[in-house]
Amino acid sequence: MVPDRLSRLSSTLHEEGIEHALLSSFVSLRYFTGYQATVELEPSPMTPLLGVFLWIRGEQPTLYLADMEPGEGITGSVLRESFSSYVIEKPMFAVQDLSAKLVARLRSLPKSKVAVEPEEIPAALLDVLRSECPHLEFCSIKDVLSTFRMVKDAEEIETMRETLALCDLGQRIAKQQATAGRTEIEIFTSVRSAMEVQEGGRVPIIADVVSGPRTALTGGPPSARKLEAGELLIVDLVPRHLGYWGDSCNTCCAGEPKKEYRDAFEGLAAVLSDAIAKVRPGLPACDLDRLVRTGVAKLGGSYPHHTGHGLGISWHEEPRIVPYNTIPLESDMIIALEPGMYFEGKWGMRLEYVLRVTASGAEVLSKYRHEL
Amino acid sequence: MVPDRLSRLSSTLHEEGIEHALLSSFVSLRYFTGYQATVELEPSPMTPLLGVFLWIRGEQPTLYLADMEPGEGITGSVLRESFSSYVIEKPMFAVQDLSAKLVARLRSLPKSKVAVEPEEIPAALLDVLRSECPHLEFCSIKDVLSTFRMVKDAEEIETMRETLALCDLGQRIAKQQATAGRTEIEIFTSVRSAMEVQEGGRVPIIADVVSGPRTALTGGPPSARKLEAGELLIVDLVPRHLGYWGDSCNTCCAGEPKKEYRDAFEGLAAVLSDAIAKVRPGLPACDLDRLVRTGVAKLGGSYPHHTGHGLGISWHEEPRIVPYNTIPLESDMIIALEPGMYFEGKWGMRLEYVLRVTASGAEVLSKYRHEL
Repeated sequence: MVPDRLSRLSSTLHEEGIEHALLSSFVSLRYFTGYQATVELEPSPMTPLLGVFLWIRGEQPTLYLADMEPGEGITGSVLRESFSSYVIEKPMFAVQDLSAKLVARLRSLPKSKVAVEPEEIPAALLDVLRSECPHLEFCSIKDVLSTFRMVKDAEEIETMRETLALCDLGQRIAKQQATAGRTEIEIFTSVRSAMEVQEGGRVPIIADVVSGPRTALTGGPPSARKLEAGELLIVDLVPRHLGYWGDSCNTCCAGEPKKEYRDAFEGLAAVLSDAIAKVRPGLPACDLDRLVRTGVAKLGGSYPHHTGHGLGISWHEEPRIVPYNTIPLESDMIIALEPGMYFEGKWGMRLEYVLRVTASGAEVLSKYRHEL
Repeated sequence: MVPDRLSRLSSTLHEEGIEHALLSSFVSLRYFTGYQATVELEPSPMTPLLGVFLWIRGEQPTLYLADMEPGEGITGSVLRESFSSYVIEKPMFAVQDLSAKLVARLRSLPKSKVAVEPEEIPAALLDVLRSECPHLEFCSIKDVLSTFRMVKDAEEIETMRETLALCDLGQRIAKQQATAGRTEIEIFTSVRSAMEVQEGGRVPIIADVVSGPRTALTGGPPSARKLEAGELLIVDLVPRHLGYWGDSCNTCCAGEPKKEYRDAFEGLAAVLSDAIAKVRPGLPACDLDRLVRTGVAKLGGSYPHHTGHGLGISWHEEPRIVPYNTIPLESDMIIALEPGMYFEGKWGMRLEYVLRVTASGAEVLSKYRHEL
């Protein structure tokens, strides 16, 4: 599927009047080369950027990857070159080595425009390219790329089904573990361990695990707080599998929920399911946002966050389901919908499913079912 | 301790003939402001940078932090300002908002030099500053900062003792779990869960967990591979606590080790302990490297990696214990030493302790003891 993405990039650049592209964002590297970079290491102390993707019209595209990167998953359509970051024989020189290699390649190009991601390219690298290649104009492709990955291809949909199966497993474990006396962090480690054993390897994960009055905060990392009987627990799990993020949220209760919680849960679940029933191609994201927000208001609640968002190679991308966004839904967009209600100092609740927009409506990809 | 660091920054800039500083690397934000940013989320899709630290001579320093950052741990010596990254009312505009705020502050400065980290500042941000503030010269402070954090202050040493206690716990659990039939990923999840429950919260961690023939590769992430009786297991654990990384490595055996492994283990442990005995202020890093590398060669082995490295806010920093590095050790440097030996296609072994250089030698901060 990378070849299709590359030919789409080619046409898009052509329409914009740009000849070539030099992309350096984490998401572009994954999307256009297939490379699933490791996360969880912070920005690496060995190189400020893990690589860049160079696309020169008429030539085979190249991924320049830091030599400390394992480099798994790079598609056959893309050449791999490496640049040196950390060796034991001399001080680190990642940006110098990468710039020199890029200059060698770019210097011989005729006068032309090269698309870059200015918010993701270090000034040190772009400074060298500008100074050594004054015949090239480096121009931003940020706006174009912000919606480029919205509609998912078959390979992406398949991968995301797998990622969402990890969410399903995590939510089942969380529900089992949500008993009085357990701490948020204990529940989280059980959830993640099960996902990692299932995956047969590490699973990067972003997670809200908050209980009791903390649920009013909408989210937060798991702490040593112990669940008490009758309290709510919000579990929002965002794991990454093969470079694609899933998302899911359930709110459950340690033991028997009081009537106020049961009513809120049923109301929220109904708002979500009504919204899913109205999803269809052509529906503007802002209309979907308003529909859900109004539904929650009728229950007497509100939420300060988005109603939902696209996801894929990043855990938050277009189409964002927010009040200002007029982007119409399209078939094969994958979106998360996550209405909630929060009462300051008291409690909060959120329910989320991920769905695929289809020709006639929506397919819910999340298979776990919300359970209080 | 941040105030001391700030006054050291002030003197250093003065010596370099630079008036102000605008720092954007992850490590500089932690070191100069105390802010422990979340990791594990990949580069955020909501902002390309989490913040910048602005130090203007004679004014109170300011941390401009993305508004989605929780902002815990910022020291009282530093003002906090936020810039907007993601709101539901309009499209994202993190870099625009941050640049506008910085320009407002920098525009009124007299003609002067501002230190930046060119490999960690996005071109989009620096481009705006250069164009809106032509009276300022933005110059690199990269080389100066690369050794700035080498010698640790009392607060850092205390925090790193705590981080290393997490390593100790992890190594104990790993040793217990290293039995035939367990998979690498099961061992890893047990280790990490214990560390997170102990911490009462999430613990970012980098880890090599490799068994059997995979040990010859020096490292790698835990997989679904099952340990067999008599096989080796390398466990290298690098957790983060309060923004400081620890490090530790043990090699153990599932069941009874054969004589070849026992001999190698004892030899390697002796090389490490001889090296520790020779650590003292004034010893050049390259001499320490040679000493250890030669010791391993005498055992008939070799390792392709560094002998060790400094660590702290980053998991790998100066002083790097490598062949080219003439930096002399100083009191209160904290370094990891990690000799290994690897036999291609067969097996490998590595042992690591972290130590603090003292006035007269070394204090081993790692409290677990290597056990095969």
